[in-house]
Amino acid sequence: MSTFGQYFKVTTYGESHCRSVGCIVDGCPPGMELTESDIQPQMTRRRPGQSAITTPRDEKDKVEIQSGTEFGITLGTPIGMRVMNENQRPKDYGNKTMDLYPRPSHADWTYLEKYGVKASSGGGRSSARETIGRVAAGAIAEKYLRIAHGVEIVAFVSSIGEEFLFPPSNEFSLPNSPRNPEFLKLLDSITREKVDSFLPVRCPDADASSRMEQLITDFKEREDSIGGTVTCVIRNAPSGLGEPCFDKLEALLAHAMLSIPATKGFEIGSGFGGCQMPGSMHNDPFIKAAAVKPSGQYSQTARPRLTTKTNNSGGIQGGISNGAPIFFTVAFKPPATIGQAQQTMTYAEEEGVLEAKGRHDPCVVPRAIPIVEAMAALVMADTALAQHARSSARSLLPALKETIPVEETRSV
Amino acid sequence: MSTFGQYFKVTTYGESHCRSVGCIVDGCPPGMELTESDIQPQMTRRRPGQSAITTPRDEKDKVEIQSGTEFGITLGTPIGMRVMNENQRPKDYGNKTMDLYPRPSHADWTYLEKYGVKASSGGGRSSARETIGRVAAGAIAEKYLRIAHGVEIVAFVSSIGEEFLFPPSNEFSLPNSPRNPEFLKLLDSITREKVDSFLPVRCPDADASSRMEQLITDFKEREDSIGGTVTCVIRNAPSGLGEPCFDKLEALLAHAMLSIPATKGFEIGSGFGGCQMPGSMHNDPFIKAAAVKPSGQYSQTARPRLTTKTNNSGGIQGGISNGAPIFFTVAFKPPATIGQAQQTMTYAEEEGVLEAKGRHDPCVVPRAIPIVEAMAALVMADTALAQHARSSARSLLPALKETIPVEETRSV
Amino acid sequence: MSTFGQYFKVTTYGESHCRSVGCIVDGCPPGMELTESDIQPQMTRRRPGQSAITTPRDEKDKVEIQSGTEFGITLGTPIGMRVMNENQRPKDYGNKTMDLYPRPSHADWTYLEKYGVKASSGGGRSSARETIGRVAAGAIAEKYLRIAHGVEIVAFVSSIGEEFLFPPSNEFSLPNSPRNPEFLKLLDSITREKVDSFLPVRCPDADASSRMEQLITDFKEREDSIGGTVTCVIRNAPSGLGEPCFDKLEALLAHAMLSIPATKGFEIGSGFGGCQMPGSMHNDPFIKAAAVKPSGQYSQTARPRLTTKTNNSGGIQGGISNGAPIFFTVAFKPPATIGQAQQTMTYAEEEGVLEAKGRHDPCVVPRAIPIVEAMAALVMADTALAQHARSSARSLLPALKETIPVEETRSV
Amino acid sequence: MSTFGQYFKVTTYGESHCRSVGCIVDGCPPGMELTESDIQPQMTRRRPGQSAITTPRDEKDKVEIQSGTEFGITLGTPIGMRVMNENQRPKDYGNKTMDLYPRPSHADWTYLEKYGVKASSGGGRSSARETIGRVAAGAIAEKYLRIAHGVEIVAFVSSIGEEFLFPPSNEFSLPNSPRNPEFLKLLDSITREKVDSFLPVRCPDADASSRMEQLITDFKEREDSIGGTVTCVIRNAPSGLGEPCFDKLEALLAHAMLSIPATKGFEIGSGFGGCQMPGSMHNDPFIKAAAVKPSGQYSQTARPRLTTKTNNSGGIQGGISNGAPIFFTVAFKPPATIGQAQQTMTYAEEEGVLEAKGRHDPCVVPRAIPIVEAMAALVMADTALAQHARSSARSLLPALKETIPVEETRSV
Repeated sequence: MSTFGQYFKVTTYGESHCRSVGCIVDGCPPGMELTESDIQPQMTRRRPGQSAITTPRDEKDKVEIQSGTEFGITLGTPIGMRVMNENQRPKDYGNKTMDLYPRPSHADWTYLEKYGVKASSGGGRSSARETIGRVAAGAIAEKYLRIAHGVEIVAFVSSIGEEFLFPPSNEFSLPNSPRNPEFLKLLDSITREKVDSFLPVRCPDADASSRMEQLITDFKEREDSIGGTVTCVIRNAPSGLGEPCFDKLEALLAHAMLSIPATKGFEIGSGFGGCQMPGSMHNDPFIKAAAVKPSGQYSQTARPRLTTKTNNSGGIQGGISNGAPIFFTVAFKPPATIGQAQQTMTYAEEEGVLEAKGRHDPCVVPRAIPIVEAMAALVMADTALAQHARSSARSLLPALKETIPVEETRSV
Repeated sequence: MSTFGQYFKVTTYGESHCRSVGCIVDGCPPGMELTESDIQPQMTRRRPGQSAITTPRDEKDKVEIQSGTEFGITLGTPIGMRVMNENQRPKDYGNKTMDLYPRPSHADWTYLEKYGVKASSGGGRSSARETIGRVAAGAIAEKYLRIAHGVEIVAFVSSIGEEFLFPPSNEFSLPNSPRNPEFLKLLDSITREKVDSFLPVRCPDADASSRMEQLITDFKEREDSIGGTVTCVIRNAPSGLGEPCFDKLEALLAHAMLSIPATKGFEIGSGFGGCQMPGSMHNDPFIKAAAVKPSGQYSQTARPRLTTKTNNSGGIQGGISNGAPIFFTVAFKPPATIGQAQQTMTYAEEEGVLEAKGRHDPCVVPRAIPIVEAMAALVMADTALAQHARSSARSLLPALKETIPVEETRSV
Repeated sequence: MSTFGQYFKVTTYGESHCRSVGCIVDGCPPGMELTESDIQPQMTRRRPGQSAITTPRDEKDKVEIQSGTEFGITLGTPIGMRVMNENQRPKDYGNKTMDLYPRPSHADWTYLEKYGVKASSGGGRSSARETIGRVAAGAIAEKYLRIAHGVEIVAFVSSIGEEFLFPPSNEFSLPNSPRNPEFLKLLDSITREKVDSFLPVRCPDADASSRMEQLITDFKEREDSIGGTVTCVIRNAPSGLGEPCFDKLEALLAHAMLSIPATKGFEIGSGFGGCQMPGSMHNDPFIKAAAVKPSGQYSQTARPRLTTKTNNSGGIQGGISNGAPIFFTVAFKPPATIGQAQQTMTYAEEEGVLEAKGRHDPCVVPRAIPIVEAMAALVMADTALAQHARSSARSLLPALKETIPVEETRSV
Repeated sequence: MSTFGQYFKVTTYGESHCRSVGCIVDGCPPGMELTESDIQPQMTRRRPGQSAITTPRDEKDKVEIQSGTEFGITLGTPIGMRVMNENQRPKDYGNKTMDLYPRPSHADWTYLEKYGVKASSGGGRSSARETIGRVAAGAIAEKYLRIAHGVEIVAFVSSIGEEFLFPPSNEFSLPNSPRNPEFLKLLDSITREKVDSFLPVRCPDADASSRMEQLITDFKEREDSIGGTVTCVIRNAPSGLGEPCFDKLEALLAHAMLSIPATKGFEIGSGFGGCQMPGSMHNDPFIKAAAVKPSGQYSQTARPRLTTKTNNSGGIQGGISNGAPIFFTVAFKPPATIGQAQQTMTYAEEEGVLEAKGRHDPCVVPRAIPIVEAMAALVMADTALAQHARSSARSLLPALKETIPVEETRSV
């Protein structure tokens, strides 16, 4: 359905050609300062039209809070949010040729199979516009995580086509290896400001960024498209997040990421490269964790005493966060809408050639950055609240006798 | 929590060292023939001790149905299932040294952080034994899918370490490329019998299998471990499955797969390789679907009129199945338990060397096959029931006037 | 949380003094004609200000569909709906005295205990204004039920204070006895038009209505308030609805009704009176059901072959609908806001006298009618979709051998 | 489905004639002492055969914990529990006559309509035996509530037929009026020991109990049956429990109670009697709460500063607990299985006379006591964990500036 999360819950609505898109966030902690200005920046980062290499459509995407706050403070009740669809242009997709064909690798055909209604929105909820509600909700989640736990979530472009930020090499057979110290160093320090200083590509390296931009321009000129990968790091995550068995933290993150339009893959920590490493190298030995920095509003949040020397685990062991940086990479396919003519078949089972008119992005990866961050924030807020419930409940029980060794639950 | 699915719902319980493990399956359609003999084969395939290269622990894993059937017919009520823990051996992990150390890349430390209780089960629910309930539930799901829709789900080992069934090449930069006709051909025809004829590795190619077996033996001899990948295909899936937005079919599959212990990555269709393909090559043009074979008990299930010429989409477009084969690959890390000595730290923050005694698998990938199949079956049954509800509801509404083009909903 | 239902799901937002109130309906079948004109009538029936005996606040409550339809047809995607809060008057509750006191039997105190935020909305989500989203969602649910199954849902006022439509008597010790043929006759025939012809009280009997109206007027003049009961009947419900064990149909209805502000009780069928009847009188013997009327758009929906001679069960047996009329009664307490001075205590623990200024209803029971109908419709649509999933799944299984007697599942 | 609760979650399985019945409890806080001896007492109280007036079936109902504890301490993982069906006697209901008839007011007919499978279990999940899993789960919930918060939950029989513990009178037109000081006094002091000292009826008053026992005996002799009411009180409930809008505390309690077999009604606080009271009398003025008793293991749980002078609200205002005793009454119909011959109709639509052989209870109300307590405990544990999550999350946010008045959230 259109709901994500159990404790910090977001429900979205809206497609490309309706009145508005939006969401309801249920479960936001009460007593937090929150206004539209906390949400708008990520909305704006998601917007198309930020440079020559993205679509010129300018939708403004101004978010309006409908409920759940008073005088800029959250009440703990559901937060309704809405963004108008100002620039609907329904004719664009509605021309005669487009009506006849299900667009290849688009959702037109599968939506028709599913719902039996052929709408001018086509596979309406598969549109990138649907992600607006997620980004709005994610901005709230991440504000809570930042204030309460000092959590930092930063995503960046790690490849476009075959241009990589950390390319495979003789030493590391796959990109983004956690055995590569340069990669780990970037994860420890990268900020959103740094990422955005490399607009329009959002790959935080001048050389790689320039190669990627050129590649995208080439594809644009050929009326073709290209995909890439986004890598995301979550720093200062509390330990103990993620629910055993079905709702392991990496399972929830994978669910979240593969729910973003145009995604084809997900890997956590060592990922597919980890399959090729011996256990003796892949295992992350424990070491003493650095003392927590004493200052800051979230310093009351206890950090674990131990951490790991290496981080092939990507911050998650047994489905549960260990306090180390969590990082993962998401694969995005090339956009299905291309200007080139395509030999395909009509709804009426007649062969023909489809030529797509209108705006289209040669590459959506740079715009996916805030969406990846938003979905990561939703997963982290949801699992943090689940752990709050557990550890708070446990704290009311009497201390155990010495029959089995017991530590204090980490209060997240 | 310990529940998976919304319509076809499984809840599991149990860890390594308790009385039993098991599950409750809620939502199985009534009136289906079902006995333990439908479930046991996959339980047995999951069992360790099937060859020299897996752990010698022999648990029998005999499943007992507790409820929900009468005279071998499902009643539609919850199906309780139980498997005794016959061979608990709690001492094995309980030796003095092991008590002092959280095992590297195991769940001991994170479970303690989460729950504050240090159990002899360690990260109990992260044990492979927890997967028994999933396999039992999955066997029921796949029986329904097979009878009602002719669905076939087959998983196989596609790599161990750097030994690949379909290796990367000049033409295909990553393994398992859907542009490789040999790969697609295998997906169309592979059976479980064929896979099991390549025991103990379960890689359906004599040469690759032999190389992989040698590799695992090498790692075993070094008291080390190694990972690999499992590829799974779902044939004859109904079209229209998967819920837009957050519960896209690939998102549910990713969630399911990353919830399996020791997984690090997931890719659907073209996967990470798809990021490197131009849109003009990645798009799957539509062609007329072959007529449905007239015979068979599930022939009443309508198949879509169109299919795709290529299948970079992996059978899913816009988050919804299109009727083509669905395939994906899952990455498994090397097992964390190795015989080699490891420099690490005790719970009490003292450095030291941990040596693991007792049984351990150098490679879990072959045993993961039935678990991957089970989780895939749970996702497919759940989404099929969701679509049943929708299409059945729609079928009771009057036909629409000609204001917008409408087709009959595909009745799954 | 703020979500109701599993299959036909509504999530609401909004309190008295925010920008708007609204909801998202997820799971509405695709291909149904739907515009604001299907929803507005129940919104309008819910509005205050319909007569001298209700509050004069006129909010118009004009609903706007945001998404999920195109050209007046449902797409199957989430339907966002919004109603502006035009007449917020936040000062009314914000006067100095009111700020000091938690209003007795209102939600001010408990919301503060729960959220720790003292809002000018007070117990904001406990406001009657929150019910707008429910009524909008319910109107969609009942349109589906009416078209697909011919379901009719009608609620009416059955008592105000000690004035009853069907008073207790020597024969029937409690009101609304299903052993009273007059009561059953009314349930079989009552319509919304008939109910509304008795505005403002909505008790469908001239004499009782007149007594009730007088009673309410008396309470209004005394600046006091009074409660009452609403009885609701659901005719033509499909059989087989309601899920065994925890989600029995009466349990879902009770949940739905007790979630309406100001409710204190619920009874189904014979209700509290049923406790006093011998089983030999309470049991409903089976008889042959009347043949279904041949005409009408929903005539394809099979009706059960048997029905019951009496209906003490209220149309539900073992938690599952049997096809007979479902009826229940809901108790509403007197509104907590009264004009009379009340001796109570401030937030600061000082004794004092509270006098409430501003508008207030002496009796909310007549306005609750469309809310009761809406919540009943949500329960019925949700359980109907659950049963659609099951019976549709079962229909794809082969017929059973004769080992146990089996009938065709009723296709709802 | 067969799951209850969101945070403290129980899933049950089993019907009368299968191998076992049981449940999985997910979400129990870790680190709590728990063995079968904590659970068995309520199981035993639920058992039939406790006196001459209940059915002689003796099932022992010995509970076995399968998982989730180690050395008598909860691990925080799912707790599987199982009770064997020792005394199945499937023939009893399987005689030739019974096979032909759906039993009046039983679930045979509706289960067949729902599932299309006619099982010898009849409406299997509607059996009282299904409640075993609930009682086991409830015993765990109430242990947590007792240790952490000092919560006491006690239910008792308040009427059988027209014999009442607190009968209606000139002063109180309906039974169990919270305006009756004797009733309130009983609620403040009643214990389970006291209730069980009035076995077999469990009505804590010698005179009323004796009248009720005689009434039940009369019905037994007539081969007839009779219903009654159970009243339940929850003392020391934390304030702030219950979720606004759809999951008000009284809505969850109503859901829980109406899910118990044979229930027909629910009322909270003043209930149906509250409809007849003026608001000026019904409103509960605030007074200062008594200081918390300083001793006891749960003394750290803050109690609210204010309480109410009267308690017509039944401890809940705006859907949220206020800290005062919560009380409610549940109506149970007469058991449907009676020895008397009944004129009814066969499955094959032939009129005939049904005579039920075999064991049957003339009155289930006394046995329902531990089931009502269990369901109440499940609701309270679930809502307490929800509030733990919220208040714990809020406690990590910085204190607000003085823009709006704020209090500390009550930490439950």
